[in-house]
Amino acid sequence: MTASTPNVPLIVRTDGARLWSDLMTIGAIAATSGGGSFRPTATDGDRDARNLFILWAKEAGLTVTIDGVGNIFARREGTDPDLPPVLAGSHLDTQMPGGKFDGPLGVLAALEAVRALDRAGLRTRRAIEAVNWTNEEGARFAPGVAGSAVFAGRLSLDTMMQSRDRAGLALGDELGRIGYRGPAPVGGRAVDSYLELHIEQGARLEQAGATIGAVTNAQYFGGALVTFTGANSHAHTTPMSKRRNALAGAARLAVEIERIGLALEPDGAMSAATLDVWPNNRVIVPHRAEVGFLIVHAERAGRDNALDAVEAAANRIAAELGLTAEMTRAAPRDRFDFPAEMVGLAEQVAADLGHATMRLPTLTGHDAISMHYACPTALFFVPCRDGWSHSELEWCTPEHATAGADVLANMILRRADR
Amino acid sequence: MTASTPNVPLIVRTDGARLWSDLMTIGAIAATSGGGSFRPTATDGDRDARNLFILWAKEAGLTVTIDGVGNIFARREGTDPDLPPVLAGSHLDTQMPGGKFDGPLGVLAALEAVRALDRAGLRTRRAIEAVNWTNEEGARFAPGVAGSAVFAGRLSLDTMMQSRDRAGLALGDELGRIGYRGPAPVGGRAVDSYLELHIEQGARLEQAGATIGAVTNAQYFGGALVTFTGANSHAHTTPMSKRRNALAGAARLAVEIERIGLALEPDGAMSAATLDVWPNNRVIVPHRAEVGFLIVHAERAGRDNALDAVEAAANRIAAELGLTAEMTRAAPRDRFDFPAEMVGLAEQVAADLGHATMRLPTLTGHDAISMHYACPTALFFVPCRDGWSHSELEWCTPEHATAGADVLANMILRRADR
Repeated sequence: MTASTPNVPLIVRTDGARLWSDLMTIGAIAATSGGGSFRPTATDGDRDARNLFILWAKEAGLTVTIDGVGNIFARREGTDPDLPPVLAGSHLDTQMPGGKFDGPLGVLAALEAVRALDRAGLRTRRAIEAVNWTNEEGARFAPGVAGSAVFAGRLSLDTMMQSRDRAGLALGDELGRIGYRGPAPVGGRAVDSYLELHIEQGARLEQAGATIGAVTNAQYFGGALVTFTGANSHAHTTPMSKRRNALAGAARLAVEIERIGLALEPDGAMSAATLDVWPNNRVIVPHRAEVGFLIVHAERAGRDNALDAVEAAANRIAAELGLTAEMTRAAPRDRFDFPAEMVGLAEQVAADLGHATMRLPTLTGHDAISMHYACPTALFFVPCRDGWSHSELEWCTPEHATAGADVLANMILRRADR
Repeated sequence: MTASTPNVPLIVRTDGARLWSDLMTIGAIAATSGGGSFRPTATDGDRDARNLFILWAKEAGLTVTIDGVGNIFARREGTDPDLPPVLAGSHLDTQMPGGKFDGPLGVLAALEAVRALDRAGLRTRRAIEAVNWTNEEGARFAPGVAGSAVFAGRLSLDTMMQSRDRAGLALGDELGRIGYRGPAPVGGRAVDSYLELHIEQGARLEQAGATIGAVTNAQYFGGALVTFTGANSHAHTTPMSKRRNALAGAARLAVEIERIGLALEPDGAMSAATLDVWPNNRVIVPHRAEVGFLIVHAERAGRDNALDAVEAAANRIAAELGLTAEMTRAAPRDRFDFPAEMVGLAEQVAADLGHATMRLPTLTGHDAISMHYACPTALFFVPCRDGWSHSELEWCTPEHATAGADVLANMILRRADR
């Protein structure tokens, strides 16, 4: 790299028009009528988006590797190939439906950052890899943030490959079907650092008038699945007083979860989000119903007390309706702090570029949360309109997308030229 | 037929042990661990049960015809082949899961009745056909009582063949897959009468100590699907007060449906029975949720007032939660009376056989309700334990099954030898 004048940092600029074009192109794959995309993991849409990413990466001269869980690494070699690389990326899969930015922005900005280094004629000591992680959303296969978690050694490859969608199809089989069960081992190699740009998925930056949010920490996460069991019987003939309707229990609990969740604001959030009923036929009083929900909270006690309150409500409702209730808690994830040097890097680069910044926690799961356990990791946000995300309404302006990509490119440059 | 002494009716007897063995054999196909069966229409289990019925019908010397909607007719020719035949039967498909008797009892008793006539050396003027109707339960494909409704000209064949299950598979394709999309035209031929034996699916016979229930009429039926629409958004980051959770609305309405339904007893019944959520992923505040239910009531106003109350509740809940609600009512079916001569036939035969009888309405759909529109129809019940039905707990004693088959055989004999 060309040496810069001391105390005047070298700055590279991304091509905002190219980035925006790439975002809109990926967003057009498996597009929905409401303005979003429907690309759950290992669907045809996911395959097509992956194919485009690889096409563009190869056009940029990068070397593409696909590992056994389908993660894609597009590598620009460093001047010292023995040094661990800097990774930057996010994910191309979406919710059902999702928007155009949650995921693709971080992947395509990393790719554009590498192009920016090329245009500036800058080589770096360390290799740089633009990454697309498999199944961040967990919309089709549980759990989410899966590809990064297997890479970081936090999740077993076998377990994940055997995860099945609601149709009973296994992730491993479906990845094979779309041609993305790759030959490379998953993880097990040294990484210098991981950098991830993402839309905020909330409205704090927008409200504060900040362009770049440096993420300081993850919050307390949890969740549960509550299963009510009654007895299945004829919906016409069973006397009302004799019915043991599992759906009646699940519905009452969903109402309770909403009530408890509302009271958590502003420190936490929790909604009834899933409900499954068996046999789910109008002629039958259902014998089984399951309610699922997640919680995020700034305090450990806030999370745990809310989960306890839901469990108490489930038991009370079950007793009243002659049902049984069983609550299975998701593995809790406790608060952690990103390294101060990585938070500081995002802030410093943003300041050097003239952007207003703020510090904030992440309320959501990200591949950066997996990677935090593997290497120094930075996660930073740009605003999204009205805070809408996991929604067809999700929107990020071209200016904010470019600002994020510029920050990412210069963070990559500073990390990779060490 | 051999002439009987005036005023001393000729009586045939079925082989209760053979009937029971047939019931247990069919019940073993796609059996569930809880003692029931899982044979929704056009599944492999449905195919296997159909195959056995045909095997046994051919062993009994019957001629088997399969029509375009998969109805199976096993015919014993009469001495005057030009006379319209007497049909008797029910269905081999089950709920998800169902019991061993709802459906199979009526089909296998009809088959055993024909064997009984053979053993007694009795020919009849009219042909007799033991019938298995397709998709009575409607568990996999809507609507139910479908095969008989198409036969009776109450439902379009095309509409029914294009009905799709939750996986998107069409009934026509699935019937073809299992080899039961037959060549014969559906209906359009003269039928003398239709006779159906079924378990009661309630506890009125048991409580009254009666063995045979002569069904006088159908009740008032109705139902609806209520769709709530909100906005899908991130379950972690969307401020609680900004969420428009369609599931929250559906859950509240399910609780209301249960409350309204409980107050209908003893004249009517109504429960929340189905609930579907989109996208049904824990990370997402769901944008759409649908609640489905059916109602049965002795009075027209009782049915209509309950439906109106549910619709009012849906609109109130939607307004409170910032959702929209839309209620689509199922086509209502009003009360009708079976012909007095057919009710009387069941009662007279039962009395001749020494069985205690009672009159009662049917609270449920049956193929006899379709066939009522096509020809003089009799529907009669035998008790089922504790009134459980559409349940793995469903049970009918061998004595009651035999009593029902004996009554059916002699009703067939009297109708067919006219």
